[in-house]
Amino acid sequence: MMIGAWVTPPILSSNQQASSTSETGMNKPRNVIMMISDGLGPASVSYARSYFQHLHQLPYDHQLPLDTIHVGQSRTRSSSTLVTDSAAGATAFSCGLKTYNGAVGVDPKGNPCGTVLEAAKLQHHMRTGLVATSRITHATPASFSAHIRDRDRENHIAVQQIGNNPLGRTVDLMFGGGYCHFLPKGTHGSCRKDDRDLFKEAQEKHGWQTVFYNNRTAFDNETIELPAIALFADDHMDYEIDRDPAKQPSLTEMADKALTLLSGSEEGFFLMIEGSRIDMAAHSNDPAGHLHDILEYQNTISLVKDFVDQNPDTIMISTSDHETGGLSLARQVTPAYPKYLWYPDVVANASHSTVFLANMLHKQPKPLDDQYIIETILQQGLGITDATKKELRYLKSTTSEKNLDKYLADMLSIRAQLGWATHGHSGVDVNLYAYGVNADELRGSHENIFIGDFISRMLDLNLNETTQSLNHNNNDFHVIPLTDDDKIEYTNHLDKYHSNPRNLRHLTFD
Amino acid sequence: MMIGAWVTPPILSSNQQASSTSETGMNKPRNVIMMISDGLGPASVSYARSYFQHLHQLPYDHQLPLDTIHVGQSRTRSSSTLVTDSAAGATAFSCGLKTYNGAVGVDPKGNPCGTVLEAAKLQHHMRTGLVATSRITHATPASFSAHIRDRDRENHIAVQQIGNNPLGRTVDLMFGGGYCHFLPKGTHGSCRKDDRDLFKEAQEKHGWQTVFYNNRTAFDNETIELPAIALFADDHMDYEIDRDPAKQPSLTEMADKALTLLSGSEEGFFLMIEGSRIDMAAHSNDPAGHLHDILEYQNTISLVKDFVDQNPDTIMISTSDHETGGLSLARQVTPAYPKYLWYPDVVANASHSTVFLANMLHKQPKPLDDQYIIETILQQGLGITDATKKELRYLKSTTSEKNLDKYLADMLSIRAQLGWATHGHSGVDVNLYAYGVNADELRGSHENIFIGDFISRMLDLNLNETTQSLNHNNNDFHVIPLTDDDKIEYTNHLDKYHSNPRNLRHLTFD
Repeated sequence: MMIGAWVTPPILSSNQQASSTSETGMNKPRNVIMMISDGLGPASVSYARSYFQHLHQLPYDHQLPLDTIHVGQSRTRSSSTLVTDSAAGATAFSCGLKTYNGAVGVDPKGNPCGTVLEAAKLQHHMRTGLVATSRITHATPASFSAHIRDRDRENHIAVQQIGNNPLGRTVDLMFGGGYCHFLPKGTHGSCRKDDRDLFKEAQEKHGWQTVFYNNRTAFDNETIELPAIALFADDHMDYEIDRDPAKQPSLTEMADKALTLLSGSEEGFFLMIEGSRIDMAAHSNDPAGHLHDILEYQNTISLVKDFVDQNPDTIMISTSDHETGGLSLARQVTPAYPKYLWYPDVVANASHSTVFLANMLHKQPKPLDDQYIIETILQQGLGITDATKKELRYLKSTTSEKNLDKYLADMLSIRAQLGWATHGHSGVDVNLYAYGVNADELRGSHENIFIGDFISRMLDLNLNETTQSLNHNNNDFHVIPLTDDDKIEYTNHLDKYHSNPRNLRHLTFD
Repeated sequence: MMIGAWVTPPILSSNQQASSTSETGMNKPRNVIMMISDGLGPASVSYARSYFQHLHQLPYDHQLPLDTIHVGQSRTRSSSTLVTDSAAGATAFSCGLKTYNGAVGVDPKGNPCGTVLEAAKLQHHMRTGLVATSRITHATPASFSAHIRDRDRENHIAVQQIGNNPLGRTVDLMFGGGYCHFLPKGTHGSCRKDDRDLFKEAQEKHGWQTVFYNNRTAFDNETIELPAIALFADDHMDYEIDRDPAKQPSLTEMADKALTLLSGSEEGFFLMIEGSRIDMAAHSNDPAGHLHDILEYQNTISLVKDFVDQNPDTIMISTSDHETGGLSLARQVTPAYPKYLWYPDVVANASHSTVFLANMLHKQPKPLDDQYIIETILQQGLGITDATKKELRYLKSTTSEKNLDKYLADMLSIRAQLGWATHGHSGVDVNLYAYGVNADELRGSHENIFIGDFISRMLDLNLNETTQSLNHNNNDFHVIPLTDDDKIEYTNHLDKYHSNPRNLRHLTFD
């Protein structure tokens, strides 16, 4: 990660900024940059800041870029549960409505809903882009550019994203991972179950000008013309801590290029940028992988803030869809009352993600050599030099790569005294940040759908119109605002507790 | 808890408000109300909101009073560690400086520092008050009204609070618990080790007009004249969920009376109100006790917001000193991937705190009767009807009251799928709320000491002057602002990891 000179300019108030003026007389931005830190909860924000101060020996009040543009919080529950997934979380931002977990750009009944990206393209001819470190077909970018009832149908999502959908092509730029969903079955790196070559279809049927994959050199050196697809991994891109810069660009580099390509038009642009894998490392409960993806996201924030300074007719919003892992900056490791601390220095010694190291360990011929585990995996990989016999026994005897990942993550977490409550998501409100035109309007605590509404309002979009276009074959479909009774129903239909003795393991007391 | 009609008026902008104008031409408040929700982290805020919606069948976007006045976050680390205690946390608000854990109104070297309460009284003759549900000598109220290097010396703190200190009496009102520290040794309910009767000294030597303890009737019916002390428990006051309204007033009732008594003077007032025991229930990891103290605090917020509406020359600030417990709104209770949910309905069935129930269980004659545990403790007390044999065995065989408390808390938490990482504090940034004159100035992410600075600025206080008065016998003492090198030292001197195999228990993998 590049260490930027993260200075802290004040948030420009709207009257200092050049921007278009709508019919209502309100200043409105020409460009909207929606940044999503997938799985970044409040504790992760504090975590990365204290770590960064430790690593670079900075004053205790040194801020990271997000700290300087904090405006509020986003309340994240979905229509179906108190703990959202990324699909419902992103659909709240893209369509401005609460939907069920797993829903990509569809409402609670499964009907497609018009997204801010689509409406920006169709109604105002704005340039549009998606940048992510996950597969570009993954829940978050998908929810801005596709409509499907099940987020797992990524092969189908890719088909929609290139333009094969009722609205035609609405995306001008896709940078990220996941080319396996675009390549015909049988091609190296494909995960499609049919013979469709979506890269070819994109160019021949939907007008994409630049299409390449797995080619960092082309990304750096060749002229990219919109619309453009550039994907750098068959699956997700690598964690920042594991990334080989010769093979994959960073999130900041992709964002930088995207801003250059999208900006400059009279109509403006809408760009979604996701730090996708902050979430995935938290699913592993891996403090090091999580951290480096957060710091890289902060680096991207710094870049985008600079862009806003130079293009003051822009609003950048940054928030998370949800928290992941239930991270706590405290972990009681003794039955006795805990000390009040956690150890950033432990995490500073890790050089790879636990997923990466688990994979190395898993591929190693059996029986495993103690020395290899102690030196290569633990010392060089995690910076751990005090593994216990019990820990070594676990690592030698465990064959599941997933369990090795989780165990290595716990070895690091327990030493750093970082607590995790789950390998899934949690329901805490997440932080909300904004910078640029009308950033003030996002101040306070909001439901996540307020952010979708805000973008729609800023860009004078009519999402209902786009929704109706998407549902033109569905006579039953109407866009109906929720009544208070509907909203109460979201509260009342939540799952209730059912007794299951198997789930009652009081581990810390056994 | 009373269910208020929590409507959501917009935050008044400063130009809508009547307030005094300082020499700089800036509107400033006459009155400052500093509210502290001890131990309330971001997850606890979301937790109480979702619970409240569930209990009263409210729309998913129903807000609690704090939600409507969210302005930012406070960064909580102390000078000595990344995870503060309440003494250092409160001294950040009272003196506007970072100090070490355990320090009550003293700087990192142990020198007394002038507090906003003291300066408000000495420099502007403002009325001053402390309302808390803990012992009034406990870390938070103590840090506004006493100076001592060790928070545990509460008998000495009480001596200072009544006026026996270099500044004389600076407090006009103390409502809360902890009268044991004021009564002479040998008196029923005393915990002093000397014969001093501080209630008597307060009246005879320091001019306190109204002094009573353990007397709810007097609180309700007798005329209270300032300065006034009214304490309602020898130790902390009861948790809201356990409170007998015939014996103890609620936090809201104490706050209401304090506002009536303190308001109305030309000079204005400074009032600190603490929801003290939100923290203590979180130390037990008790979801029910924690919740009801949060909801009562929200109720007090509602009252104070109304006061600000009626007295618009006032600013109310609300924040926490730190998070407690490492609460997560998610807990993985299966080795398999978790469902995305937690169960508010589980917590709704609890009628007492786990501390209360553990005490009942502990006092019960042995051997314990299964029926008593199943019916009285679990069903009536916690609403649990599906205890396992193993759980019953633990409750029958455990003699430590503290362990019973923790175990009962875990029985409730595991069913509600709520995670806790520690019985201590954690390092996450906490939410910051404000309402009234210049509330906008608190927007964003701030170090906790910014809040002390803000109060000092709003009231035109000179804390250095008060600090110098406190240190008049100490020739070596100077108030020196921190340099960047000093601040870096706070980062660099943090404890580093030391290997200790005993602390490496990977419970979820064993």
